[in-house]
Amino acid sequence: MKKLLFPLPVFGLFTLWPNLSYANDLDLIQNNLNTIWIVAAAGLVFFMQAGFALLEAGSSRAKNSVNVMMKNYTDVCIGSIAFWAIGYGLMFGMNSTGFFGENHFFIKLTEDVDLGFVLFQTMFAATAATICSGALAERTQFRGYIIASIIIIGFIYPVFGSWVWGGAHGGTPWLAQMGFVDFAGSTVVHSIGAWCALAGIMIVGSRTGRFDPNTGEAREIPGHNLTLVALGGFILWLGWFGFNGGSTLAGDESVGPILLNTHLAATAGAGAIILRSTFGNPPLLLSDTVNGSLAGLVGITAGCASMEPLYALITGFVSGWVYLFAKSLMLQFKLDDVVNAVAVHGFAGAWGTLAAGLFYMGDMFNEQRILVQCLGITVAFLWAFLLSFLTYGIVSLFIGLRTDSLHEQRGLDATEHAEIGYPEFHEHATYTANYQNTESTIQLGKTG
Amino acid sequence: MKKLLFPLPVFGLFTLWPNLSYANDLDLIQNNLNTIWIVAAAGLVFFMQAGFALLEAGSSRAKNSVNVMMKNYTDVCIGSIAFWAIGYGLMFGMNSTGFFGENHFFIKLTEDVDLGFVLFQTMFAATAATICSGALAERTQFRGYIIASIIIIGFIYPVFGSWVWGGAHGGTPWLAQMGFVDFAGSTVVHSIGAWCALAGIMIVGSRTGRFDPNTGEAREIPGHNLTLVALGGFILWLGWFGFNGGSTLAGDESVGPILLNTHLAATAGAGAIILRSTFGNPPLLLSDTVNGSLAGLVGITAGCASMEPLYALITGFVSGWVYLFAKSLMLQFKLDDVVNAVAVHGFAGAWGTLAAGLFYMGDMFNEQRILVQCLGITVAFLWAFLLSFLTYGIVSLFIGLRTDSLHEQRGLDATEHAEIGYPEFHEHATYTANYQNTESTIQLGKTG
Amino acid sequence: MKKLLFPLPVFGLFTLWPNLSYANDLDLIQNNLNTIWIVAAAGLVFFMQAGFALLEAGSSRAKNSVNVMMKNYTDVCIGSIAFWAIGYGLMFGMNSTGFFGENHFFIKLTEDVDLGFVLFQTMFAATAATICSGALAERTQFRGYIIASIIIIGFIYPVFGSWVWGGAHGGTPWLAQMGFVDFAGSTVVHSIGAWCALAGIMIVGSRTGRFDPNTGEAREIPGHNLTLVALGGFILWLGWFGFNGGSTLAGDESVGPILLNTHLAATAGAGAIILRSTFGNPPLLLSDTVNGSLAGLVGITAGCASMEPLYALITGFVSGWVYLFAKSLMLQFKLDDVVNAVAVHGFAGAWGTLAAGLFYMGDMFNEQRILVQCLGITVAFLWAFLLSFLTYGIVSLFIGLRTDSLHEQRGLDATEHAEIGYPEFHEHATYTANYQNTESTIQLGKTG
Repeated sequence: MKKLLFPLPVFGLFTLWPNLSYANDLDLIQNNLNTIWIVAAAGLVFFMQAGFALLEAGSSRAKNSVNVMMKNYTDVCIGSIAFWAIGYGLMFGMNSTGFFGENHFFIKLTEDVDLGFVLFQTMFAATAATICSGALAERTQFRGYIIASIIIIGFIYPVFGSWVWGGAHGGTPWLAQMGFVDFAGSTVVHSIGAWCALAGIMIVGSRTGRFDPNTGEAREIPGHNLTLVALGGFILWLGWFGFNGGSTLAGDESVGPILLNTHLAATAGAGAIILRSTFGNPPLLLSDTVNGSLAGLVGITAGCASMEPLYALITGFVSGWVYLFAKSLMLQFKLDDVVNAVAVHGFAGAWGTLAAGLFYMGDMFNEQRILVQCLGITVAFLWAFLLSFLTYGIVSLFIGLRTDSLHEQRGLDATEHAEIGYPEFHEHATYTANYQNTESTIQLGKTG
Repeated sequence: MKKLLFPLPVFGLFTLWPNLSYANDLDLIQNNLNTIWIVAAAGLVFFMQAGFALLEAGSSRAKNSVNVMMKNYTDVCIGSIAFWAIGYGLMFGMNSTGFFGENHFFIKLTEDVDLGFVLFQTMFAATAATICSGALAERTQFRGYIIASIIIIGFIYPVFGSWVWGGAHGGTPWLAQMGFVDFAGSTVVHSIGAWCALAGIMIVGSRTGRFDPNTGEAREIPGHNLTLVALGGFILWLGWFGFNGGSTLAGDESVGPILLNTHLAATAGAGAIILRSTFGNPPLLLSDTVNGSLAGLVGITAGCASMEPLYALITGFVSGWVYLFAKSLMLQFKLDDVVNAVAVHGFAGAWGTLAAGLFYMGDMFNEQRILVQCLGITVAFLWAFLLSFLTYGIVSLFIGLRTDSLHEQRGLDATEHAEIGYPEFHEHATYTANYQNTESTIQLGKTG
Repeated sequence: MKKLLFPLPVFGLFTLWPNLSYANDLDLIQNNLNTIWIVAAAGLVFFMQAGFALLEAGSSRAKNSVNVMMKNYTDVCIGSIAFWAIGYGLMFGMNSTGFFGENHFFIKLTEDVDLGFVLFQTMFAATAATICSGALAERTQFRGYIIASIIIIGFIYPVFGSWVWGGAHGGTPWLAQMGFVDFAGSTVVHSIGAWCALAGIMIVGSRTGRFDPNTGEAREIPGHNLTLVALGGFILWLGWFGFNGGSTLAGDESVGPILLNTHLAATAGAGAIILRSTFGNPPLLLSDTVNGSLAGLVGITAGCASMEPLYALITGFVSGWVYLFAKSLMLQFKLDDVVNAVAVHGFAGAWGTLAAGLFYMGDMFNEQRILVQCLGITVAFLWAFLLSFLTYGIVSLFIGLRTDSLHEQRGLDATEHAEIGYPEFHEHATYTANYQNTESTIQLGKTG
């Protein structure tokens, strides 16, 4: 780490075509700036994992907090390796059919691949998978969950991604060619993750006690730490600056308007919840407010680079309402989504993708554009929902997905990890401490 | 998000005046770098909201933790919209009188406004407002608080700001013209926020039980989570690198010394507290140490770009002592500031603004300069204190500001939000759970 | 903070040697970019302090959480001042002997020193010292700990550093000259810190009850908040992007591969723990998984700039196993390391330094290179262990290091700080509340 000399060479002092060399030198510096911005953005997107983990753990009961954190932590670990090995190639490799990439698997330094871009995309893939962990919290086996995650990160997500963002190494992604607009992934990342979560929710079923066994009415299961939920919200919001801002893939002035739009949509999404409580009846819940801001962020992700700030506000505001609507819709169908991930990422993502078409700057309300957006939204739903339904179904049948009801009651921390989150505070401390001192007989892969 | 081609055009290969074009191309890259730095800094300043929220929630009792988080979350949401709509124009618009801006309200992409700069300034405005939330925690109604916040962000803060930093779109801010030095806002942001908090404290009164009803002696009300207080301190410290570093508005080498000064002042502020406990009597409190570092950061904010590191250390060290003095002064006047925000942001901010004059590099102890700094400090106090006194007073009379004493006793989480922070751990869990299952009858806007 | 004019001068429009000036202008912009990257990286490395603090506090019992947070907070404060005053000069000053630097103490703006670089290096120094705080948690006196920290940051760390990274201001560091490769400090930072921690552990002894007094068997003392442990892990992982990425000292394209390697090694380190639990017997512990990822990060720190991604994965994967081995080795020797810092930072650091030699790109398994790596590893151990053993020994004899056993039982929060972390939740709340209301008679510097 000795202070390096400035790496640019002699700057064409002696070249015959100084202007050409000068263009190359400028290129070099701008490329350096692009790299710095994209890796900084990758760091922010990585940090979103911490935000998701806190949001989800705080929204779960204390007896499952270790399990939730571990699912998020493991997602990144196993998922990143899967994406480096297979996902990146499937998504961005030479895309001659328009339907999947064909090269750049197990990436090496010597390949013609921008590794900062790989890092950034790896974090995106991990985000898509992590969306499921919150939805399925508190009743899903660790091993089955992780295996499904690998398939989402390594196959379901990158293949759909190759239809929209593919072709980095040649070829023409079919949806992109039709003019589908999804700048940073309202559909490509968030909806895909959420539709996978929806399939998982259907297969794994709702938590014991979530719906009254007689009346079927939903009963609240409050999360154990709302302070951490809010902290998770703040971290996700911050991470989104990398998510949307880094999707320029270039460190240039376009990042300013993109991030202002991103920020305003988040404020408007939460604003919808706050207004509703101020002028209406319901109490102002922290969980809804945080989710409202996240819905706004999901919503603006598709159109943040092609919208006026005023429309970003509208997109975010409507996202807040879409969230509220989708949340109650899910409950009507007796679907138990611990953190309302499907409402936030799926429904608000679909709305945001539509909004990107509706409010496209300089060409608003173009029917053709709107139709293409609807096509993309539909295709994403069909692809992700069907394939993940199959995935979770197979995992459930052959490996196990739903945890044993005794384990669910005790909490997954004790049975999956032989560890509990807050041993000094929780009433469960006494009996789980035994697990720790004696060798636990209920172990990973042996549950259920 | 397909990898974009490098956006610079042909680099003047065929221009007639290559040097001129070359200057333009360089300009373009440096401007790109400026944008990247300012939006990254904006992200850091945004993250300060999480730091404030944790510091304040951790310093409050558990029964008010949701409420504290919500106030911080809502500040950003509502405040950012207010600043985009009105605040920015008032602060930075064409400033023909020197006393307020006149254009660039409800900002559009097509205006000649740097939207990265708008984002950065939005985060500053939110910071000023958020300072109040900690000071007024645990006994202030949500609705009244938020309305006052909007007035602070949309009017009180930007108008004063226009006197010092205004004129971005033409015109001459009157205080700046006199030579007032406040690089990143010891006065413009921190003191303004703190004097508003002081007015709020006076109007809303102290928490029940904070002072002995007979003797008037102060009684400690310990915060419920000191781990989160320290985490909040770390996050704020990190965020300050964006706060002071981004205030260059340019990605250049001046950021190095600015941030070294910033860091050293923070260490010295905490160092003052640590030294006092090492050589003196009092126990070394975490809360005081964190506040000492924040006082150091507030103190160096004005002069970080125009001071030797040694004087940054001195500025920070004195800030720590100023904090201790101001904290006990507040208690003598029976002013109940939950997080000592007035001491940290108000008093240390005033000292720091003075220090920026005293230790101005190459022109130290210039009497004229010191007088101007004192003038700015005084004007800030008068403007912010009087206007916010009026604001909080009107809100208190017509909307309601102090919460009902029954609600204060139960905690604002249950009565304002029908939600509690830690339902599995807290003794309050039992009765508040009822609120959640039955429809709460005490709701937002109906308290007090 | 008025929008500054673009600071580049006239761009050589009128110079006689336009190409030369043009090289200067390009230099200027690239240097600006370097500064921005290095200060951003410094911010990330600073944030690692929060990560360490959370990891360590969460792994300790609640009664010591304030003390752990305070040790981390104070480390940065006192340590940064020590590094600015003495450490930087010793490490990077003119190094005529190859064994220590001789100038640039008490750094001024007017010196020929890059202050962004100073800031970055200050954060590194603080990292080295903070590694000890976790290892020695729950039974070490505050004052003694801090004094030892100052000696580590101000002398032990920078002197060794000057052998590898020194010579920024002239001279030739002897280990670097032999070809020792340690890009970002597997040895220079992490192992040095860990060997200091090892010496401290030996001198301060294990926590009461950690080993069965009769059988000598190790007994688990579970940490009080695993959610915060995982959050700490996420923050450290993020911070490492600054740690390794910033060590280029230049904002250029090399950061991409460096950070991809860094990320992959972290995932593989955790992956080792996960695989072991999936195919083997032991339950999947959150603490081990987090430590596995950190071991991977420590391991790749030396070679992240000179390795293929595949070897980064291997380096990280082996780091996970090295961690597990070293953890049980420590227990066999009855060494009580609260967060397993020696296993993570010391052993995985040594392995990583070796791996940097083994897998050196384009020159793998070069015997000469491997020998030099082994020499550096050995020298680091001898220097850090012996000097810190002496330091902790002297502190223990003359100032006091081990806390009184009554205080250990009560928790250091009450006795060192007269403050407790969670007054509303903890059973200790009642009696420690007395400390707070009556004047505490057990104070900092008077314990033991």
